[in-house]
Amino acid sequence: MAGNSIGTFFRVTTWGESHGPAIGAVIDGCPAGLDLDSGIIQKDLDRRRVGQSQISSQRKEADTCQILSGVFEGKTTGAPVHVEIQNTDSDSRSYENIKNLFRPGHADYTYAKKYGIRDWRGGGRSSARETACRVAAGAIARKFLSTRGIAVFAHTIQIHDIKAQKFEKETIEQNDIRCADPDAAAKMMEKINKARKDGDSVGGVVEVCATGVPAGLGEPVYDRFDADLAKSLMSVNAVKGVEIGSGFSSAGMFGSANNDSMRMADGAVAFESNNSGGIDGGITNGNIIVARIAVKPTPSILKEQITVDTEGNDATISVQGRHDPCICPRAVAVAEAMMCLTLADHLLRNRSARV
Amino acid sequence: MAGNSIGTFFRVTTWGESHGPAIGAVIDGCPAGLDLDSGIIQKDLDRRRVGQSQISSQRKEADTCQILSGVFEGKTTGAPVHVEIQNTDSDSRSYENIKNLFRPGHADYTYAKKYGIRDWRGGGRSSARETACRVAAGAIARKFLSTRGIAVFAHTIQIHDIKAQKFEKETIEQNDIRCADPDAAAKMMEKINKARKDGDSVGGVVEVCATGVPAGLGEPVYDRFDADLAKSLMSVNAVKGVEIGSGFSSAGMFGSANNDSMRMADGAVAFESNNSGGIDGGITNGNIIVARIAVKPTPSILKEQITVDTEGNDATISVQGRHDPCICPRAVAVAEAMMCLTLADHLLRNRSARV
Amino acid sequence: MAGNSIGTFFRVTTWGESHGPAIGAVIDGCPAGLDLDSGIIQKDLDRRRVGQSQISSQRKEADTCQILSGVFEGKTTGAPVHVEIQNTDSDSRSYENIKNLFRPGHADYTYAKKYGIRDWRGGGRSSARETACRVAAGAIARKFLSTRGIAVFAHTIQIHDIKAQKFEKETIEQNDIRCADPDAAAKMMEKINKARKDGDSVGGVVEVCATGVPAGLGEPVYDRFDADLAKSLMSVNAVKGVEIGSGFSSAGMFGSANNDSMRMADGAVAFESNNSGGIDGGITNGNIIVARIAVKPTPSILKEQITVDTEGNDATISVQGRHDPCICPRAVAVAEAMMCLTLADHLLRNRSARV
Amino acid sequence: MAGNSIGTFFRVTTWGESHGPAIGAVIDGCPAGLDLDSGIIQKDLDRRRVGQSQISSQRKEADTCQILSGVFEGKTTGAPVHVEIQNTDSDSRSYENIKNLFRPGHADYTYAKKYGIRDWRGGGRSSARETACRVAAGAIARKFLSTRGIAVFAHTIQIHDIKAQKFEKETIEQNDIRCADPDAAAKMMEKINKARKDGDSVGGVVEVCATGVPAGLGEPVYDRFDADLAKSLMSVNAVKGVEIGSGFSSAGMFGSANNDSMRMADGAVAFESNNSGGIDGGITNGNIIVARIAVKPTPSILKEQITVDTEGNDATISVQGRHDPCICPRAVAVAEAMMCLTLADHLLRNRSARV
Repeated sequence: MAGNSIGTFFRVTTWGESHGPAIGAVIDGCPAGLDLDSGIIQKDLDRRRVGQSQISSQRKEADTCQILSGVFEGKTTGAPVHVEIQNTDSDSRSYENIKNLFRPGHADYTYAKKYGIRDWRGGGRSSARETACRVAAGAIARKFLSTRGIAVFAHTIQIHDIKAQKFEKETIEQNDIRCADPDAAAKMMEKINKARKDGDSVGGVVEVCATGVPAGLGEPVYDRFDADLAKSLMSVNAVKGVEIGSGFSSAGMFGSANNDSMRMADGAVAFESNNSGGIDGGITNGNIIVARIAVKPTPSILKEQITVDTEGNDATISVQGRHDPCICPRAVAVAEAMMCLTLADHLLRNRSARV
Repeated sequence: MAGNSIGTFFRVTTWGESHGPAIGAVIDGCPAGLDLDSGIIQKDLDRRRVGQSQISSQRKEADTCQILSGVFEGKTTGAPVHVEIQNTDSDSRSYENIKNLFRPGHADYTYAKKYGIRDWRGGGRSSARETACRVAAGAIARKFLSTRGIAVFAHTIQIHDIKAQKFEKETIEQNDIRCADPDAAAKMMEKINKARKDGDSVGGVVEVCATGVPAGLGEPVYDRFDADLAKSLMSVNAVKGVEIGSGFSSAGMFGSANNDSMRMADGAVAFESNNSGGIDGGITNGNIIVARIAVKPTPSILKEQITVDTEGNDATISVQGRHDPCICPRAVAVAEAMMCLTLADHLLRNRSARV
Repeated sequence: MAGNSIGTFFRVTTWGESHGPAIGAVIDGCPAGLDLDSGIIQKDLDRRRVGQSQISSQRKEADTCQILSGVFEGKTTGAPVHVEIQNTDSDSRSYENIKNLFRPGHADYTYAKKYGIRDWRGGGRSSARETACRVAAGAIARKFLSTRGIAVFAHTIQIHDIKAQKFEKETIEQNDIRCADPDAAAKMMEKINKARKDGDSVGGVVEVCATGVPAGLGEPVYDRFDADLAKSLMSVNAVKGVEIGSGFSSAGMFGSANNDSMRMADGAVAFESNNSGGIDGGITNGNIIVARIAVKPTPSILKEQITVDTEGNDATISVQGRHDPCICPRAVAVAEAMMCLTLADHLLRNRSARV
Repeated sequence: MAGNSIGTFFRVTTWGESHGPAIGAVIDGCPAGLDLDSGIIQKDLDRRRVGQSQISSQRKEADTCQILSGVFEGKTTGAPVHVEIQNTDSDSRSYENIKNLFRPGHADYTYAKKYGIRDWRGGGRSSARETACRVAAGAIARKFLSTRGIAVFAHTIQIHDIKAQKFEKETIEQNDIRCADPDAAAKMMEKINKARKDGDSVGGVVEVCATGVPAGLGEPVYDRFDADLAKSLMSVNAVKGVEIGSGFSSAGMFGSANNDSMRMADGAVAFESNNSGGIDGGITNGNIIVARIAVKPTPSILKEQITVDTEGNDATISVQGRHDPCICPRAVAVAEAMMCLTLADHLLRNRSARV
């Protein structure tokens, strides 16, 4: 219960700092007999990787992962799987001159207040670099889910004031924004580039979905599927909101419109809408799981900001270094990972539902 | 890890069904030496109680609580505190005629799929009646928080398309909506009454705040304060979204506007805005904690709806019985409870932060 | 993690003090669909009950249990099962005159040091009365185990210097000692009665066994079956030692004698001995599970003892009241309960072992 | 809850197999501000190391550890500490010819039954090599305990039929047996050497003690200090029994003899004996903590044994390879580690005992 683990049965513990020698994830509870090799993990890591496009940080990390345990002759053994990624391109120099300043919107001040000590190199433990471990663990979860016909994908649906107007799934990985609306993607790219040139950053919204999820996942009344999903998504750096299905728009609806009618179709229950986002009473209902996260604008910006220093003096700060002007494109990979982890954990937990 | 507990150190386990003989909460981990009696709990329970106004369910539960353990001579002993509430006005008759129908927007279908058995009397375990236990436990947490100068309050800020325009805190408990804008409250009441007359229901948004919270609460990187708060709030019946600080509106902002500038004031760090909602990097920063929840319209409505029955036939349903046409006024008390529980748990966890 | 719960999936939380109004257990994670009524629980409670024989405490508790949740139409629903037992014969008067004294061998001093407050009535939370809740929960676990052909029994194998010399299982419940050797039982009874007349008490050893347990239960490397069993047994009042299989006698053996040879028999693996007690590498091997617990002599004795009072003065104490001169006969029921709980939990956990 | 973690606040997760590339431990919850470097850990690792004497395995592992996270400028930061140890001398060849045989007394058969797949190289995850990770984590716990004046040590008190007759603490590290009785140590060495020459092995008993432990550690009623200690010790390879204080000998005692009398001495409570082993009612009482573990004889022996193969045929086996003829000397280091981990965890947990 010390904070760096998530999940109960499919349980992930991560370690490592932005500028330490390496980072890693221990996946404890991955069922035995799953086909696994590092290539499966690498594929997802590559989707999260820094330096993929002109709109993301220029830190050049290969993010090459190694599986150090838990796999024997191509299959998981039931022992913990440890995935390790070396930090090869960390450069603490740009942090030297701000090591006595608290960056606004960052965890600098809060870590200092909590622990009385702070690893200022690249944000230390609070860096988004930790999300590589989530993606690595998520890739293993995804592999497990695939044995059950479950698939997970995410896409950017809003950048600043530009919203996607259509959904062409196959286009998501064809643009740097990971938006299912190619036209909106182009405008979003402009918006991000403009912000970057201004020494600023922008926020956005990412939607994450899961198909093929059976009804029955989620443990009432606290470890509901939606509650655990909300926690896992809100635990991602820069996320300030989570909604499921009709989410905040349900606040403006009548019950008669928000309720999803049910009908028999081909001998199975079918829903005529999906305002529930696939979850009723905290338990999956067999419909597609739909969640959205609000991603705040990157707090590290070149623009001068007002802050204080570690000695308690007023100061100004301009954050140099290699930062994404918008987090959403990479948050897509992380959001998918968190959905995969939540699903894998609840699939296993649900095995105990009945005698 | 069986789902009916929340918290790690200040840990609450609830039990009981809507139409069973009683419901209750075991609070394990309440520190010893806290002044406690049932009156302290009753006060909060009365705020959640059914039958408080014309816009809430007409079920008449006294919700009288009893403390059965953990308190000796007016103080907690460190042993688990068990609070029990008798169910005195449950009436299963109105459920008899729909026991073979799955109510849209409810957990009927999902519980049946998960467990293969379903207590149809008043929704059984999935009933909002369970939230009385949350409020009872939350009252104990609130009492503990008060010893540290922390206060928690919530208020309705939106009902359907009516939004509060001003914040007059002292008026919150003066109207049935629990809205800090008396004028908006009047319009909200009209909107709810209209929906009720139409056999329909409406949704809304509740904001929950905590003042006096010290910097440093929250455990990176998964048990962040915001992540645990999101889970605890999303676990409440009918909640479909959670946001912190600027939340979803941060998606439309530039980093330069969203970052909260810091300034020294009277020898302490002060924030010039609160887009973070009092949480940076998942750890409280000393500012007011601000969260909002989207509350969907009550799924139980008189209006006829399309559904299926337990035998797999198409059907229609009109939900009789005693239901709130809008959940928000009572969700105010529950949201406060969840905030109190999350704070109490993290206050205790934070005692381990330093050597 | 607040201390009053045990198990992960089949998770039990107990509450209540010796002289409070009631005690109870919440069983969270009992699979849905199990046939259950209070009679099943009562049967095991009656075996633990005080006042069963001349050698146990004369407190007359009916120990009548009520199921307040989690069962509908005779079957568990997947919701938490709450079992409550009223305290009807608590009498705090005999404790009044020793409320300022720390009873040697009891938790009086340690609770006072830990919590700074102490419920002195009958030992409060530290009383063996709490074990009634364990037995109630264990009875539900036993019912679940019976659906898998698993049976659990315990028996007294030593009282002071008298050891059982033979094993006639059917005689266990035929004598007050619950010893499988009727001749030894008679001598044990004499020994206990002699101690009681002397104002003293005696210790003993109880063995607890499980048959029909499949190979594969236990989670390496910390939540091994033997480790979790050791914890659950050591958590019982008065237990000072736990051993599995050859236990402490294995210390005096050669490996060639202690290893259990395997042989095929009727197409299945059979062990030619059971020094492992049915557990190899922390995982059950299909053989009978055998564990033994050392039960210290009851600390409450009439004989005058040296102690200190709550004000820090030397003092003497003679503990009046209704106490068992030997705990073993009732520990039999409690040990069975702990074995049942450990088995039920690991049966559920093992469902996640493979893809 | 997936099995490879222990502790709640001072929480350790280990990974790695005997013949994989490396093994490691993640320590999550180590308080910030602790002085730590790899030398502190190495010192304890060296005490556990293989190849220390003629009576332990001849595998030559340097067991050089690296700290990959959680330490900055010589102090812990509150982030998880990851310690990694490379496997440099694993040699799977001697396992090739027994890979289809189940070694008696080992986890081969049970892992195969549980997971349906087995890493046969050196026992894979079930190897005692994993205990190096325990020792590494324990060294960090020990460092934390030292800031509170708590010290932990263990020693061998029995090998086969030879028992230590005296206690000269300073001699423990002066003989290969780690026995506090130099004369007994010499006889124990003979006994072990004799067994080794016979292709056999012997068991023994190790005692582990903690001094300077404050009263009040342990969480009633399940996470008692003795219960958690029993679990942590029983989870160590080859341990078949755990006892506290007078342990199994308390079964043969009268209450008047077993109870520890209390007396005021220099203004503090002093115990006149320590049959409780420093724990009353599951909570530490301020006296020295004393526990003993029964260590079975090493199951890997050269002597031919009867077993079965993975195809279900009867077979014989002679286990070649590099094995300790007696585990006790190295178990001393591991037992200390488990005591340190249990103490560190409960020290942190106890910070929540009072308002």
